[in-house]
Amino acid sequence: MRGQVAISMSHSYPIALDVMSGDHGASVIMPAALRALQEMDDIHLLLVGDEAVVAAHMRHWPESVRPRAQVIHASQTVAMEELPAVALRNKRDSSMRKSIDLVKEGSASACVSAGNTGALMATARYVLKTLAGIDRPAIATALPSLFGHTHMLDLGANVDVEAAHLYQFAVMGSVLVTAIDGLETPRVGLLNIGSEAIKGNDRVREAAHLLEGSSLNYIGFVEGNDVYCSDVDVVVCDGFVGNVALKTSEGVARMIADNIRTEFKRSWITRLRGLVALPVLNRFRNRIDPRRYNGASLLGLQGIVIKSHGGADEVAFQNAIRIARKEAEANVPQRIDKQLGRMLRQEVEV
Amino acid sequence: MRGQVAISMSHSYPIALDVMSGDHGASVIMPAALRALQEMDDIHLLLVGDEAVVAAHMRHWPESVRPRAQVIHASQTVAMEELPAVALRNKRDSSMRKSIDLVKEGSASACVSAGNTGALMATARYVLKTLAGIDRPAIATALPSLFGHTHMLDLGANVDVEAAHLYQFAVMGSVLVTAIDGLETPRVGLLNIGSEAIKGNDRVREAAHLLEGSSLNYIGFVEGNDVYCSDVDVVVCDGFVGNVALKTSEGVARMIADNIRTEFKRSWITRLRGLVALPVLNRFRNRIDPRRYNGASLLGLQGIVIKSHGGADEVAFQNAIRIARKEAEANVPQRIDKQLGRMLRQEVEV
Repeated sequence: MRGQVAISMSHSYPIALDVMSGDHGASVIMPAALRALQEMDDIHLLLVGDEAVVAAHMRHWPESVRPRAQVIHASQTVAMEELPAVALRNKRDSSMRKSIDLVKEGSASACVSAGNTGALMATARYVLKTLAGIDRPAIATALPSLFGHTHMLDLGANVDVEAAHLYQFAVMGSVLVTAIDGLETPRVGLLNIGSEAIKGNDRVREAAHLLEGSSLNYIGFVEGNDVYCSDVDVVVCDGFVGNVALKTSEGVARMIADNIRTEFKRSWITRLRGLVALPVLNRFRNRIDPRRYNGASLLGLQGIVIKSHGGADEVAFQNAIRIARKEAEANVPQRIDKQLGRMLRQEVEV
Repeated sequence: MRGQVAISMSHSYPIALDVMSGDHGASVIMPAALRALQEMDDIHLLLVGDEAVVAAHMRHWPESVRPRAQVIHASQTVAMEELPAVALRNKRDSSMRKSIDLVKEGSASACVSAGNTGALMATARYVLKTLAGIDRPAIATALPSLFGHTHMLDLGANVDVEAAHLYQFAVMGSVLVTAIDGLETPRVGLLNIGSEAIKGNDRVREAAHLLEGSSLNYIGFVEGNDVYCSDVDVVVCDGFVGNVALKTSEGVARMIADNIRTEFKRSWITRLRGLVALPVLNRFRNRIDPRRYNGASLLGLQGIVIKSHGGADEVAFQNAIRIARKEAEANVPQRIDKQLGRMLRQEVEV
């Protein structure tokens, strides 16, 4: 199997897809895989899951993409509510585990899973290990903002962190943005509850101190609204705060969308008005479409793991594959490793 | 002065307004005061600030409302960026301090300030003291939701809390909702990053344990999106998380509004479409207008203190006065005191 994959490695990015996980499994992920193959001709997909299921889907695929797709059989699936420790112990032949194994052994340059975050993080950490200098991996994602987009981490991998971890998150986030957005010195902000230096808790203040002394482009404290309304590139916070901020954002957006819909449905007159406004509202919706932002990076590992939203549809999952390809092309883990090494040396020199 | 005020106390709710604070001071707060007097004929306003400034505004007021307004001179103002400890020590004749003093001495049944949160909380705590059984006051506000509205606390008064504090916040929030919304047993949720019992940090899990054993209508963990999309009445969290969630929400709403505006301004065709949609979009905007939610309660004190947004306009500040009146009518501090006493007794009996 390895040899087969290796042939194409020099020409394309082999990406392992955990086909069985997520709320919809293969029925969404296989069509997303096809879309991705048609869109990106330099990727090669390793479709990890039940051989029969995957093959059934592939039967309808055009001949042209087949050479860049390969089935890797996995007999188990990690359930969405499965405890990380249980998944790690009992699901060694799961589509999730095997996808990560492919990254570990070098057959895949990245993997994508819509499976349960806890199990994915635990398995990835166990199989791939963290980079030297990283105590804890973090989850990062891009979010739409008035200035394009903002990357935020951690989004839930670490609920109790120390200042040194926030510092590591900042380094990883900065490298990620340089690698995939091409920004030389991304603006890094530390999420706090006031822009004045006096506010916040000890942990955040200590992390600010560490960042001020670093070579990162640290711009100081930012507040929740800055994630969406300031030209900060990386927002750093602990996983509890980041997860609440992310989910709260989803809630506000949903409430607003529902309210707009309700108002336009109020009567036949408002329905007509809605019909007139529709093309504009659609353009707007497309602009902040969460599917365009689907795909969170598990950073700090010796390999690329992308987590898709469990409920992702084809368009959304396709985007997660796009991110995996981008990170593979940019060699994100190696870059983080290098940057960390450089910063540690600098600190020693100082 | 006290005698004068006392005359009207049986007939109306005397509310002290810190006229000088906030981004706009008297120029916004005095017109808001007039609106409030015209709207609510059972309030009596104590306008605390520079006598000359307040009098100049009142000169244009209709005769009919004058008997329900009274100027209380204060020679100082607390600046928006002033440190709480400095304000507390050096601004004993500030409009903020005197407004709170009026509540303490019983001349006002509530006070409203748009001044800096830290100074307001520190002064209120120093002057009014906390209720027995409350270690730390918290800041609560209502937020729009698909189910009407949700109350959330703490929003920034306490950055480092223990489980017992979260428990106290839950009691205070529950009493607040019963008092002002008339709900017998408000549904109380604990903000966490997963609805499963295994997720979150130790502090949250311990608080959940305390709440499960209480007489509150505790519904379990809720996530960020539930604040806006679930029928939970009270969402409890620490002040760091609550503040980030609140500010993030503001950011998302602003980004969405800006994006909608941009799309409608794209060309003359989209402008026309916008014109047609405007009445509906205005209705929608009115529905989630943040001004309708302006006015946060400092809970856990022996007196009612309402914090208005610093940048509040007349409509927004008027709403903060409305909340002050509502809490005065409902006797919120006494109710919290009673409920806490009852719960402590129950715990002893158990």
